[in-house]
Amino acid sequence: MDSVLRQSKAMCPFMRKATAAGLRAMTTAATATATATQVRPAIAPSPCGGAISKLQVLARRCPVMGKAMAVQSARLGSNHHQHAGFHGAATSTFAGHRERSGKARLHTSRSKDARAVEDALLDKVQLPPRLPLKQQQAATSAATATATGGAGVAPGVAPSPRPSTRGSKFDYEGFYEAELDKKHKDKSYRYFNNINRLAREFPRAHMANREDRVDVWCANDYLGMGRNPQVLRAMHDTLDEYGAGAGGTRNISGHNRHAVELEHTIARLHAKEAGLVFSSCYVANDATLATLGSKMPDCVILSDSLNHASMIQGIRHSGARKIIFKHNDVHDLEQKLASLPLHAPKIIAFESVYSMCGSIGPIAEICDLAEKYGALTFLDEVHAVGMYGPHGAGVAEHLDFEAHVRGAPHDTIMDRIDIITATLGKAYGCVGGYIAGTAKLIDTVRSLAPGFIFTTTLPPAVMAGARTAIEYQMDYGGDRRLQQLHTRAVKEALGERDIPVIPNPSHIIPVLVGNAELAKKASDKLLKDHDIYVQSINYPTVPVGQERLRITPTPGHTKPYRDHLVAAIESIWKELGIKRTSEWAAEGGFIGVGEANAVAEAPLWTNEQLGVAEATRAILAASPGGSSRGLTERLLELELEGSSASAPAAAAAAAAGAA
Amino acid sequence: MDSVLRQSKAMCPFMRKATAAGLRAMTTAATATATATQVRPAIAPSPCGGAISKLQVLARRCPVMGKAMAVQSARLGSNHHQHAGFHGAATSTFAGHRERSGKARLHTSRSKDARAVEDALLDKVQLPPRLPLKQQQAATSAATATATGGAGVAPGVAPSPRPSTRGSKFDYEGFYEAELDKKHKDKSYRYFNNINRLAREFPRAHMANREDRVDVWCANDYLGMGRNPQVLRAMHDTLDEYGAGAGGTRNISGHNRHAVELEHTIARLHAKEAGLVFSSCYVANDATLATLGSKMPDCVILSDSLNHASMIQGIRHSGARKIIFKHNDVHDLEQKLASLPLHAPKIIAFESVYSMCGSIGPIAEICDLAEKYGALTFLDEVHAVGMYGPHGAGVAEHLDFEAHVRGAPHDTIMDRIDIITATLGKAYGCVGGYIAGTAKLIDTVRSLAPGFIFTTTLPPAVMAGARTAIEYQMDYGGDRRLQQLHTRAVKEALGERDIPVIPNPSHIIPVLVGNAELAKKASDKLLKDHDIYVQSINYPTVPVGQERLRITPTPGHTKPYRDHLVAAIESIWKELGIKRTSEWAAEGGFIGVGEANAVAEAPLWTNEQLGVAEATRAILAASPGGSSRGLTERLLELELEGSSASAPAAAAAAAAGAA
Repeated sequence: MDSVLRQSKAMCPFMRKATAAGLRAMTTAATATATATQVRPAIAPSPCGGAISKLQVLARRCPVMGKAMAVQSARLGSNHHQHAGFHGAATSTFAGHRERSGKARLHTSRSKDARAVEDALLDKVQLPPRLPLKQQQAATSAATATATGGAGVAPGVAPSPRPSTRGSKFDYEGFYEAELDKKHKDKSYRYFNNINRLAREFPRAHMANREDRVDVWCANDYLGMGRNPQVLRAMHDTLDEYGAGAGGTRNISGHNRHAVELEHTIARLHAKEAGLVFSSCYVANDATLATLGSKMPDCVILSDSLNHASMIQGIRHSGARKIIFKHNDVHDLEQKLASLPLHAPKIIAFESVYSMCGSIGPIAEICDLAEKYGALTFLDEVHAVGMYGPHGAGVAEHLDFEAHVRGAPHDTIMDRIDIITATLGKAYGCVGGYIAGTAKLIDTVRSLAPGFIFTTTLPPAVMAGARTAIEYQMDYGGDRRLQQLHTRAVKEALGERDIPVIPNPSHIIPVLVGNAELAKKASDKLLKDHDIYVQSINYPTVPVGQERLRITPTPGHTKPYRDHLVAAIESIWKELGIKRTSEWAAEGGFIGVGEANAVAEAPLWTNEQLGVAEATRAILAASPGGSSRGLTERLLELELEGSSASAPAAAAAAAAGAA
Repeated sequence: MDSVLRQSKAMCPFMRKATAAGLRAMTTAATATATATQVRPAIAPSPCGGAISKLQVLARRCPVMGKAMAVQSARLGSNHHQHAGFHGAATSTFAGHRERSGKARLHTSRSKDARAVEDALLDKVQLPPRLPLKQQQAATSAATATATGGAGVAPGVAPSPRPSTRGSKFDYEGFYEAELDKKHKDKSYRYFNNINRLAREFPRAHMANREDRVDVWCANDYLGMGRNPQVLRAMHDTLDEYGAGAGGTRNISGHNRHAVELEHTIARLHAKEAGLVFSSCYVANDATLATLGSKMPDCVILSDSLNHASMIQGIRHSGARKIIFKHNDVHDLEQKLASLPLHAPKIIAFESVYSMCGSIGPIAEICDLAEKYGALTFLDEVHAVGMYGPHGAGVAEHLDFEAHVRGAPHDTIMDRIDIITATLGKAYGCVGGYIAGTAKLIDTVRSLAPGFIFTTTLPPAVMAGARTAIEYQMDYGGDRRLQQLHTRAVKEALGERDIPVIPNPSHIIPVLVGNAELAKKASDKLLKDHDIYVQSINYPTVPVGQERLRITPTPGHTKPYRDHLVAAIESIWKELGIKRTSEWAAEGGFIGVGEANAVAEAPLWTNEQLGVAEATRAILAASPGGSSRGLTERLLELELEGSSASAPAAAAAAAAGAA
């Protein structure tokens, strides 16, 4: 056993690297009976009574320590006093400098030492005197009140010092309450707005009251496909013929022509060998990354720092090593790739359009790196499918616009992406998600991913609707073109009014507020005073201090809607005194807003691709001093007047013509 | 640092407990260059080259070892030869008795020792000489071929001993191929049948060819709600008014009256304070268990051994300690509960109807234990909602049938369940899943679960259809009653023909085949020769040797369908020589089939609840010798003839009347 113990000691790099001071900081625990001044930021109050230290959190994640702690926990629960003698030594061992008799003990008897150290973690960190939650909260509140001089005691709950409640059951309702309290306190508690988007009045909705109409400016039905007559017709017909639900998993009676046809269409859209449909793209990302990351030996997943929650979860669930690279930073990514062995499997997981800031991933550069370092590319096109490229296949397609117009996908950037994931629930107006890739990749995920295997197939009508939407957008480019022009018009109008739009080359309009309460207030006021629905985006969706309104125009947001929106925002910015771009600039700028040296990234859709290059030149030439003020609104006007309609319409038709 | 190292040594109970022999067994690695006879069952071939040992799998899960290994892996990748000197020592250390110079080294220099041990894991276990996959497979095949005398070499791939290919990239396509090969070899590769269930010809479907009709006998649309006119009407209307998709997440424009109303109906169905809808019940189970298990400090989840994959994943994703108890064994569960501290949060996760065997969970007894030991009850009613109870709320409702008929849910078993989860995609005929519980529990999961927060809401039409289905089944008990009678009739008919039905008290009819190939063959023959679709259920859905056909009758499976099914099965059993019940009995019985002392569990739906008690007594009294042969078919005939229609119809109406 001696050599085994020696190995164990050597095996734990965490303990080897930890300093005594670092360990002390991580373990200084505030129990309900400890004084308030002992509380450190590293310690979160636990509804179980006492506190959880960072060390305990780490230890619980360790398969060996975690198990030992649970076993010990059971032992202590029934047999606490028997072990009390170890506590002094144990605590001091983990508290580093606050040692008393620990060291001497550790040298006397190996088996006792081991237990002492275990108990240390358990008593000090995991098993402090237990209080029912309310008493615990009261005690903490009382301590806080004393420390701050405020009145922190919960109403009706008197502080009860050191009540002996060991043996009481866990207070589940108290736990829920405490979790919800935290959300309320950090302003991350979500209040849902009841928004009923009306197919016949797009982009309007009714609220809980059917008579209350609002303009929806933040849905992800970017192209209005949710009310597209062809989509609805396909769904009605399928409902009548095949009923409501699929009736089973893909393996057991839930595989049907709708699934086959939809996956065929998906493969065609992305010029891949195969596609696979999931309940949602959340599930697609989670299941695919978890499966590949766990099955490929020693897999490392490199993840953009702004990746969506579904990818973060998938990576976590894979158990694979995760390396986060700086958002869109190919230099940082390369450094990280270069640190890994060439032969090891790696996945670079990233997005094309980052939904909350509208930034666009450097897809081509990432493909280059993937090739150089032998990595798979995993590209989430959730916010881009339907919206970019001549066939709406996403940003990867858009980057080789002409090649795809010609129907020549070979050796394009899209061709170099190994795994494309996307949704049927945003620009395609339905629900569901998918992946596309080689036939073998798809068959592997199909065969191994529990999140695909053990769940009911999407309803036939949903799959039929989604397929219709994809094919419609493959053939027709007018919706995404108009969406882009409306986006430009709103961005221009806000910019001209000194309203801080976080600059980006995509269809997302993130308007910076920079304060959680203010952002919610602005959203509430838009709804209440102006009948405009724009949800505020707060932490944890965006970092604290970057709170924003996220505006998503659609082809249905015609001039009256745009004018109304811009006027409403202007009035609210004035009323609430929200910072203007110039004010951010005076402070040196922030996340692209008002930054002096920032070079505005050109929109992904060029004037040529939108068919407005010539008209733009004409307008600018005719305007006094070549001012671009109101440029896009003027373009849209001209188009409506029909005077320049032929050019863009022809361009749009040409763009989609090759489909 | 010395004391820190000592703690580290003492902290690892796995290493402390491990014996040298045990470690050796776990690490004896078969690399491509090792001889085939060295392979142990503990070692799986790795497509990355070499093999993965159990120890490596364990070590990778350890947050400290896992990280160290990854770092080391990177270091070795670029700098392999520099460390080569350590390998002998390292390998021998981990291989226990096969030590060479390891021990001496370990005593000379601490920093070197540490590295040596790391390298040991890495070289022996993680970083054996690398081969591209195909060569690796070839080498393995060659070894196998030699060992077995068979021809195991993949076609066209020549074995190439010890090629030096370090530095080559990972072969992703080869990896997929190897994974798929494994599935083919163990007969777990799934071939999907193209089944298009026809709303107007329920329970029939067409195959890929629209003219090919089959009877579907294995869908989970148990009650035919997928073609229920009221459900379809609600969906059509909602499609027209609100369009195809919800257009956003619940927080951002995807919360609407359909979600509110559906969740209200769900809460009412289960007599809980609140409900929460997810993309699927897979997601509901995964997200809820992962969230609660990870957020509640020191949470332990006790899981029935036959729990569904979604729960298993949720528990895994929670990171909480998991304790598996024997299927439906409350004695085993109690022992495990008693070993845990009373105050620690615990969740007992189980099902009401286990889908693949039809067994039913001891809900009341588990509630008693939960109360005694302070645990939450988490009950999956996926296969039971719509099917049991006077309002279709599931088995928990069924157990207090009369109280719920009276509308008095207080203090019933259902009332004692903390978290009920279920699906909208089986008996309710649509898609989606949900949980029901206290308002605070629901609000907590709503606020914390990424799988709920970061995904698009189900389409309004789907939610409207599901709500209609639930409410329809709350008011009308005729469908589930007829489903039960059809189930009884098929079970009786198969039993009378010596066809081995795994006995159970529910609506599932698992017909035991006991062999993967035979089960698939039977399923294929049913489809090809008899136009009957019953998917075979093989490993990993059921254990090897328990392969079966899983038959699920519906109210639409009238006598001609039943007669056709029973005759087809009889003919296939004969043709393929599949074991009869009497043959299983001759071998002493197996999983309930042909077991001499097995006491048949009474069906959950009693004769009284089905309204056939009186008619049953009359038939039995009139039959020669009181034989029950063909009893249920006779009951169904009588009902059709209308002679006894009033009694059961009245009973069914009464059962649903209180709704």
